[in-house]
Amino acid sequence: MTARPTLQPGSTLGIVGGGQLGRMIALAAADFGLKVHVFAPDDDSPAFDVCAARTVAAYDDVAALARFASGVDVVTYEFENIPAAAAEALAAKAPLHPNATALATTQDRLTEKAFINGLGIETAPFRAVDTADDLVRALAEIGRPAVLKTRRFGYDGKGQRMIRAEGEIDAATILAEFGGAPCILEGFVPFEAEVSVVAARGADGAFAAYEPCANEHRDHILAVTRVPAPGIAPQTEAAALGMARRIAEALDYVGVLAVEMFLVPQGDGPARVVVNEIAPRVHNSGHWTIEGALTSQFAQHVRAVCGWPLGDPARTGGMAVEMHNLIGAEADDWASLLAQDGAHLHLYGKGEARPGRKMGHVTRLLPRS
Amino acid sequence: MTARPTLQPGSTLGIVGGGQLGRMIALAAADFGLKVHVFAPDDDSPAFDVCAARTVAAYDDVAALARFASGVDVVTYEFENIPAAAAEALAAKAPLHPNATALATTQDRLTEKAFINGLGIETAPFRAVDTADDLVRALAEIGRPAVLKTRRFGYDGKGQRMIRAEGEIDAATILAEFGGAPCILEGFVPFEAEVSVVAARGADGAFAAYEPCANEHRDHILAVTRVPAPGIAPQTEAAALGMARRIAEALDYVGVLAVEMFLVPQGDGPARVVVNEIAPRVHNSGHWTIEGALTSQFAQHVRAVCGWPLGDPARTGGMAVEMHNLIGAEADDWASLLAQDGAHLHLYGKGEARPGRKMGHVTRLLPRS
Repeated sequence: MTARPTLQPGSTLGIVGGGQLGRMIALAAADFGLKVHVFAPDDDSPAFDVCAARTVAAYDDVAALARFASGVDVVTYEFENIPAAAAEALAAKAPLHPNATALATTQDRLTEKAFINGLGIETAPFRAVDTADDLVRALAEIGRPAVLKTRRFGYDGKGQRMIRAEGEIDAATILAEFGGAPCILEGFVPFEAEVSVVAARGADGAFAAYEPCANEHRDHILAVTRVPAPGIAPQTEAAALGMARRIAEALDYVGVLAVEMFLVPQGDGPARVVVNEIAPRVHNSGHWTIEGALTSQFAQHVRAVCGWPLGDPARTGGMAVEMHNLIGAEADDWASLLAQDGAHLHLYGKGEARPGRKMGHVTRLLPRS
Repeated sequence: MTARPTLQPGSTLGIVGGGQLGRMIALAAADFGLKVHVFAPDDDSPAFDVCAARTVAAYDDVAALARFASGVDVVTYEFENIPAAAAEALAAKAPLHPNATALATTQDRLTEKAFINGLGIETAPFRAVDTADDLVRALAEIGRPAVLKTRRFGYDGKGQRMIRAEGEIDAATILAEFGGAPCILEGFVPFEAEVSVVAARGADGAFAAYEPCANEHRDHILAVTRVPAPGIAPQTEAAALGMARRIAEALDYVGVLAVEMFLVPQGDGPARVVVNEIAPRVHNSGHWTIEGALTSQFAQHVRAVCGWPLGDPARTGGMAVEMHNLIGAEADDWASLLAQDGAHLHLYGKGEARPGRKMGHVTRLLPRS
């Protein structure tokens, strides 16, 4: 293991991306006495309101990225769609955590699934789809229902299309909707629950995972996270944690990552774990850790990227935790949520509550039943 | 009760003062989606690193204060030594919470003690001292040991001098050390413990107090806070909470305040409560609430000054809590504290660890014995 630098308090953490994840990383960094410099293209970015320095520039402005990285002691990011050239420009000037391999591996669904399978971990069946012929062949091999997705830049259900089990399909028309973007066809996984493992790996190779949490989506957007995941079998939990660890180690990962998984029922036995995708960053399904764990995912990420020891991921006082996202107009209920006993309200300082936009979240700690 | 405005998320909170208290208020405000504008004279102020807007100007720059207040939706502050003219300039342009009465009452030890006595609450015996003759007379009336203090601008033991029980004294020489500043002589209180009540009053008149905490000072600077206060009798606790409430109500207070108290043993009965001083702001002895209570004092203060409902001040999971300040070079231990199980490290982002300077604090939650 090569020695990695340990940052002093008072050092500057660079964060690429200015949304709510960058904002919450910045708040955690401030609590450790770090200075934060945020790089984001939109001058209205929520993270700009809580940092010591700002760069407003595009993610492909390599000169601006290099200047930014030259002025900070370590660089991290809040989202995985950083172009390879940008990652290279950053890493040339400052340590980049998580590393460029983690970015390259996870920002392309095809590369990502091949990497996961390469570790002996199951994913949904998948095929690369670049042409209508590819799509026809892939559907024949994988079967229907299936989901066609762009290989890159999808999130919250954007860039994907369900192909149902029944009915005629016109491969050329479907593919045309994707405008020529390289795609992947993913087979259907008959899951009973969606869980994620949010975990951290330190610069020293230490690994600390939060318990798997159960995630409920609405309109492809995370709506509710529950910890502990209701009804998860101990063997399933152990399998899920082990997969997250193998993934982190294979990537020589430093920082917090989230691994989204499907639990597939298997008769009377414990559910089987199928990995859906890897987010090389703090994750919405880890927001419960702010109040619900002894170390929040944001503090944990800061510890990891600074080369500091990881904190304890155990749940606060053994309480069960529920996190509800506030999507679009749901945030209009802020006043009643503020008055609600036991509700921890977080708002991200975003201007307009557009439909589908994550405006905040609420966490509740519940006596464990 | 007159209706007071309720702030919307996205509004701007103005904070006068840029130290660690302002910084932690700003972090709490950000978590509610507020923007923060900090006003402080030193361009190296810790709070500047976590806010959306900064004004660097002196506290007596009335024009700068007025401009600042015009651009925010509500003004609060992190310290009580704001000049009356500054408070007036602020309050003319934006709601000021806590109000100017709270400032005027607490920034002068003589006014403060008279106010407290006026509520039927005991303080140390005291006399105003402006001349050597005053001092001689005051010592004769109050007895020795006693403490001579400047009426204004003292903190952490600065601006005070012990007058011991034994030995000759030269009143003129002692007073000369204070350079003609108006003083107060305070009699000795034979206390067994120092506690404080950190509490909040909402714009709607609601009152929410944290449990009294026990404070241990070293060299006049808070070193350790423990909650619950070891051995405090239920009657003493109730008396302490009742005093904090009467003080807050008499000041028509909005925000968090701290009331420092001495517990004086009374034979076999519960200890008597003597109020030492009032801090019209969040307080070092309330830092334990960040992890130790369901609502931190900073979140509570933001709720109050925004006209929002107060949060629950109960302790997290009923755990006992210990907060240790990191003074000067004590913060050099940051790396071992980061590695320590159960230690929540907070650093304030201050440059130089000068002796006596509050650099950070550590909070530990302990199973209640």
